[in-house]
Amino acid sequence: MSDTFSKILLSHPMLAPMQAPLEAQGWPVVRRWEMADAEAADIRVIVHAGEIPLTPEFLGSLPGLGLIANVSVGYDGVDVPWCREHGIEVTHAKGLNAEDVADHALGLLIGGWRSIAVGDQIVRRGGGWRNEDRMKPQPSLKGRKVGIVGLGAIGAAVARRVEALGMVVAWWGPNDKPAAWPRAATLLDLARDSDVLVVAARAEASNRGLVSAEVIEAVGPQGMIVNVARGQLIDEDALIAALKDGRLGRAGLDVFAEEPTPAERWADVPNTVLTPHTAGGTTDSIPRMVAQAVENVRLFLAGEPVMSPV
Amino acid sequence: MSDTFSKILLSHPMLAPMQAPLEAQGWPVVRRWEMADAEAADIRVIVHAGEIPLTPEFLGSLPGLGLIANVSVGYDGVDVPWCREHGIEVTHAKGLNAEDVADHALGLLIGGWRSIAVGDQIVRRGGGWRNEDRMKPQPSLKGRKVGIVGLGAIGAAVARRVEALGMVVAWWGPNDKPAAWPRAATLLDLARDSDVLVVAARAEASNRGLVSAEVIEAVGPQGMIVNVARGQLIDEDALIAALKDGRLGRAGLDVFAEEPTPAERWADVPNTVLTPHTAGGTTDSIPRMVAQAVENVRLFLAGEPVMSPV
Repeated sequence: MSDTFSKILLSHPMLAPMQAPLEAQGWPVVRRWEMADAEAADIRVIVHAGEIPLTPEFLGSLPGLGLIANVSVGYDGVDVPWCREHGIEVTHAKGLNAEDVADHALGLLIGGWRSIAVGDQIVRRGGGWRNEDRMKPQPSLKGRKVGIVGLGAIGAAVARRVEALGMVVAWWGPNDKPAAWPRAATLLDLARDSDVLVVAARAEASNRGLVSAEVIEAVGPQGMIVNVARGQLIDEDALIAALKDGRLGRAGLDVFAEEPTPAERWADVPNTVLTPHTAGGTTDSIPRMVAQAVENVRLFLAGEPVMSPV
Repeated sequence: MSDTFSKILLSHPMLAPMQAPLEAQGWPVVRRWEMADAEAADIRVIVHAGEIPLTPEFLGSLPGLGLIANVSVGYDGVDVPWCREHGIEVTHAKGLNAEDVADHALGLLIGGWRSIAVGDQIVRRGGGWRNEDRMKPQPSLKGRKVGIVGLGAIGAAVARRVEALGMVVAWWGPNDKPAAWPRAATLLDLARDSDVLVVAARAEASNRGLVSAEVIEAVGPQGMIVNVARGQLIDEDALIAALKDGRLGRAGLDVFAEEPTPAERWADVPNTVLTPHTAGGTTDSIPRMVAQAVENVRLFLAGEPVMSPV
């Protein structure tokens, strides 16, 4: 490895907090949003947030690129087959924040089902107390069915949590595997048989729009969809239309088709609780994810095997 | 029992939905908010929501009163010793909504700790996505300590839920009892050693202001208080002052010193999630609570032992 190729590129302003820990290792850091064309030749590594698209055109303009180190768990913005063909390694944060994401999913589930975020707004407007303006009660969560889409570390952590509420768990994923909970034959079957569908699958090119209009309608007017995975897994236009017409009951979303999601897109959508992609970020998980990305860069630059390849 | 004394009094407009199930039993129903003075002599039973004060003066004006049937679990508005002295039986809803209240407590806990209600408002204003306006991350819930004040059916149901999140449970109540979790020597000790204090105790005349200014400060700037029991258990003025100065980190409240709580009281209080006393009311629990109250009235009028005396 020549010194010429040892610069680290931060791909997006949201990665700015990575600059100090990378520079602390003695590596020169370049910010993409301030990068001069001449610097492209020096970039050896991209430190990246996996949900942000990196086009092959851009990657192809970096002749020395050898590693994309995602600080995130997801890496749906990275075309991994293209990177493999071009000899670029890809790493991500592996198993470092599943419990945090599952906590957040449960918070969205209870907060949406039991109208906590809505109730908060009503109390602050002075309402909600008289029979006339009292919120409509919801069914108990106990005994209701949760369908988990994607039984990875996050999906399993959600399953353990909702079982403590007395909820009944099933799941679906494209590949069967040994699990404590039954797998539905199809995603549509899971949706039909679920009161709450929790999306916890890894987003890939092949599963864009997996939670289709038909799946959304199968969850139904009394049902709820929670998404802590990636916005592109759900047909978001269909989700919004179903919530507006009451063909879907409720939704709790931490991720969106486009991020930032335009606020006006949600102005007239009832029975939703929305958070700005904060499920995985805690003061415990963030330093671990940063440290793992830095370690992957260090191993790569030292010519050793990376610790968490995708 | 003479027919003269067989009327049922609904104590408050919020009990209006009880009128139909009571009349379905053939019992004449009187609404307190429309009652003529002459009707006082006919009242044999009050159907009541336990958090609403019933003064001895009012009760003393009902010469035929023999039963106060609370549709609620709590009965802090009823002076039970006075009723006993005057031969008035008191019943309540026993063990019918503990799981629902515990779900709601968990929703307030996660929703407050992980800034879900706040995040929802930020997304709807178009914010929260850039480094500059991103919400400050919180610690993981896993490994954090939950102190439960009052280990009854609700407290134990909360304990089981937070353990599924990897949280560590302790409790305090005035009386020791066999339990799966350690009891702190004092409430102040519990507060000092808790990241989240969950108030799930029965409110009584003796424990008003139990969660005092000193207890609130012991929970501290990084800590959170959740209350799903009764507002009077917490010194609410001290709670608000501590939240405003940052001596307490966060609060999730379903119950208030005064209900409805005045909206302006919470306008400048940060890091709070507030719901209008909805923790226990679900479409599963409400019909069970109504049916139990009706059955208590039926048994009493038939001269049989009531099923859920306080």
